[in-house]
Amino acid sequence: MSKLINSINEAIKQSGLKSGMTISFHHHLRNGDFVMNAVVDEIAKLGIKDITINASSFFDAHAPIIEHIKNGVVSGLECSYMSGRIGVAVSSGILDKPVIFRSHGGRPADIISGKSHIDVAFVAAPTADKMGNCSGKYGPSACGALGYAFADAMHADHVVVITDNLVPYPLSDFSINETYIDAVVKVDKIGDPAGIVSGTTKITRDPVGLVMADYAAQTIKHSGLLKDGFSFQTGAGGASLAAANYLKDIMLAEKIKGSYGMGGITKYMVDMLVAGCFHTLIDVQCFDLDAVNSLRTNPGHREVTASHYASPIAKSAAVDNLDVVILGATEIDLDFNVNVHTDSSGVIMGGSGGHNDTAAGSKIAMIIAPLVRARLPLISDKVLCVTTPGKTVDILVTQRGIAVNPNRPELLANLKGTGLPIMDMRDLQKLALGITGTPKPITRGKKVVAEVIYRDGTKIDEIMQVI
Amino acid sequence: MSKLINSINEAIKQSGLKSGMTISFHHHLRNGDFVMNAVVDEIAKLGIKDITINASSFFDAHAPIIEHIKNGVVSGLECSYMSGRIGVAVSSGILDKPVIFRSHGGRPADIISGKSHIDVAFVAAPTADKMGNCSGKYGPSACGALGYAFADAMHADHVVVITDNLVPYPLSDFSINETYIDAVVKVDKIGDPAGIVSGTTKITRDPVGLVMADYAAQTIKHSGLLKDGFSFQTGAGGASLAAANYLKDIMLAEKIKGSYGMGGITKYMVDMLVAGCFHTLIDVQCFDLDAVNSLRTNPGHREVTASHYASPIAKSAAVDNLDVVILGATEIDLDFNVNVHTDSSGVIMGGSGGHNDTAAGSKIAMIIAPLVRARLPLISDKVLCVTTPGKTVDILVTQRGIAVNPNRPELLANLKGTGLPIMDMRDLQKLALGITGTPKPITRGKKVVAEVIYRDGTKIDEIMQVI
Repeated sequence: MSKLINSINEAIKQSGLKSGMTISFHHHLRNGDFVMNAVVDEIAKLGIKDITINASSFFDAHAPIIEHIKNGVVSGLECSYMSGRIGVAVSSGILDKPVIFRSHGGRPADIISGKSHIDVAFVAAPTADKMGNCSGKYGPSACGALGYAFADAMHADHVVVITDNLVPYPLSDFSINETYIDAVVKVDKIGDPAGIVSGTTKITRDPVGLVMADYAAQTIKHSGLLKDGFSFQTGAGGASLAAANYLKDIMLAEKIKGSYGMGGITKYMVDMLVAGCFHTLIDVQCFDLDAVNSLRTNPGHREVTASHYASPIAKSAAVDNLDVVILGATEIDLDFNVNVHTDSSGVIMGGSGGHNDTAAGSKIAMIIAPLVRARLPLISDKVLCVTTPGKTVDILVTQRGIAVNPNRPELLANLKGTGLPIMDMRDLQKLALGITGTPKPITRGKKVVAEVIYRDGTKIDEIMQVI
Repeated sequence: MSKLINSINEAIKQSGLKSGMTISFHHHLRNGDFVMNAVVDEIAKLGIKDITINASSFFDAHAPIIEHIKNGVVSGLECSYMSGRIGVAVSSGILDKPVIFRSHGGRPADIISGKSHIDVAFVAAPTADKMGNCSGKYGPSACGALGYAFADAMHADHVVVITDNLVPYPLSDFSINETYIDAVVKVDKIGDPAGIVSGTTKITRDPVGLVMADYAAQTIKHSGLLKDGFSFQTGAGGASLAAANYLKDIMLAEKIKGSYGMGGITKYMVDMLVAGCFHTLIDVQCFDLDAVNSLRTNPGHREVTASHYASPIAKSAAVDNLDVVILGATEIDLDFNVNVHTDSSGVIMGGSGGHNDTAAGSKIAMIIAPLVRARLPLISDKVLCVTTPGKTVDILVTQRGIAVNPNRPELLANLKGTGLPIMDMRDLQKLALGITGTPKPITRGKKVVAEVIYRDGTKIDEIMQVI
């Protein structure tokens, strides 16, 4: 018995995909992914139109989808993150209906609850067997965890595994199991390893970044949370990684045994696991090869589903026990609302990912960002797009000062007398505006190009066309 | 954040359990399980009545449930296997409504499809954390795999984890994850290790058993299936284990690299994995401590859910690729129908477990059993209860002769000229009757005490009251 199908084309035909349906993809192959473009090319050849793509993320590698939007093959996009040329095209108004943005926890929640129905899911699998047991840990296109693909595989009507590394049945160390899989296609390459493993996971050497990182680590040290059992997530930005590295030194010096590190996982979090700062890494996505190797070999480093990571409708998720998360921002406003969806001119270049999930779940959600970028101030009166509501954001760390959300007086009290440059948010904004001057207001079109759905299912904001 | 509840009593109250509802248990603690009795005792104290218990199996340790049937607390039983005093009591007609028997694959299929609704599932967990991530691999009551508990945990309205080994959050090597769990209760002991690890997993030294085992191994050798990629399941009976041991010798001598061994796993299957006879063990339940240790330490030894093992409604299950399964029988009839539900007098002492799942999925389903037991013949004109339909049973191996199902002429052809004592089923029956004489017909009552649901959801037989 075997589910092997000769080609993506035949697998699409067998799936019963019809015009108007929704297909899905996960983004663990990141900017190295070949699978989405290959599938949509075949859908176009079959004359199928009006397809909605629900992908956990879109990267610049998916720019060919723009042509398929123009020719009517693709009419809708849903995701948790969108960058590169596709974000620019969407911002220009290329789609008739708005993109639906969800968080990394909200996406699987809506798939599991049935709010967001997927007709055919395509799972890019670095290793698979003939029945569809599959894993991201092995093979020439190894990406590590497949956390975002579980909800799609478990709840889509039809599921196609696409692999470039077919192994004898049964694959022992499967992540997603055969009970959910309808078909398996072997192709030459599912991705480009250079693009799968991001180049962003390097510690910053920029002095401004290092100052922010030091402030961030010191803030955590004095937060009242850095003790045995401490749990932590950080992103893959250079300053965030530097902060993690400083934090590691503090934890080792003070002999603090944390419980878990979480997130998209990088070498720096792996180093913290190996050094004993945490007993567990909870991994929904690997950012670099060290993370992939660790997931494969270290029993304390565990793959989790996106639901386990961050679902707001699960009976609990790992974010619910998180102490501190370090997050980025393109903009933050006086009410601590954060934008990571658009750049300062309103063009889509990101999305929540786990941003608003971890901010909501953690005891301290810390934003670190430089006070000024490209002659534009970080702090605005009102962000162009609310990704993460200010009531869930606890503190902003910049190289010039640190602002604590007024709704966290106990955190402010803990930081008093530490020598850290605590400032009022308005004073920090004035400092920024003193450098940049008051930026010109953005003119935006009247068309809504994206709807931002908060993790609880409510629409938290809309993104307007950039003209 | 924590889901810890002080006592089973409080957890039941919190669950909203009401009279008339269905609760569930898994049986990995086997005859050492303390949890089912403890929970039902507390339900009784709370004055809740008319409860249906859906347990993957009932053992003699669950005899206290008989009193709860008499006092009206428990009014229905559903399971895949029932032995000991509870089977005797049910056979005597103690329940007003029939027991529902399903297979190990049919049970999760009905839970997942919603046919069999569970209001509150109780998961006996040898190790758990405060959020309900849990595992059977660790702790003083370690039982290994928790395969049968997944469907209950994933689909019950409310799920309570009961553990005697609470570890810091997060448990890294979880089997069932926190997203499905509502409450966690820490108790002193969830079971008796001596009863958890069965005493049955020893190779037979009985000469009759060894002859059957040799015939079984030789039959597999000549079946046409024993080649690279071979897959195999055997039960935990002494002769089956001896057959596995003989088969191991043959595979090593002939340098055959199988693909997977499966089932309830014993030391003998672990030995075959370690010796290189298989690259993977697929494990839904551990029968002995060697299996538990192997599951914990050998990456080729993998826990699977009962659905992955054998579900008839999954997109595929591991049984679908099985080459050979060795199974037992209390009775087999001229049409190769097999009974493992009752003894020869019609008293319930077993159930399908994975019997009819593996028989349906495998290329060769082999029954091995002695021709005569307790002066009663193995082969009857018609079995008292059909557990596994004869059309899925391929061959019967006894110490006196081997009968091939007439619907498998190619298997018969492969075995011709091998020196194995191939006989017609009717001749084997005559041989048995020559030893035992014609047994007295059984008198049974008119009350249906159990319904046997085949893996496809149809009622395949009924079991009558024994009077």
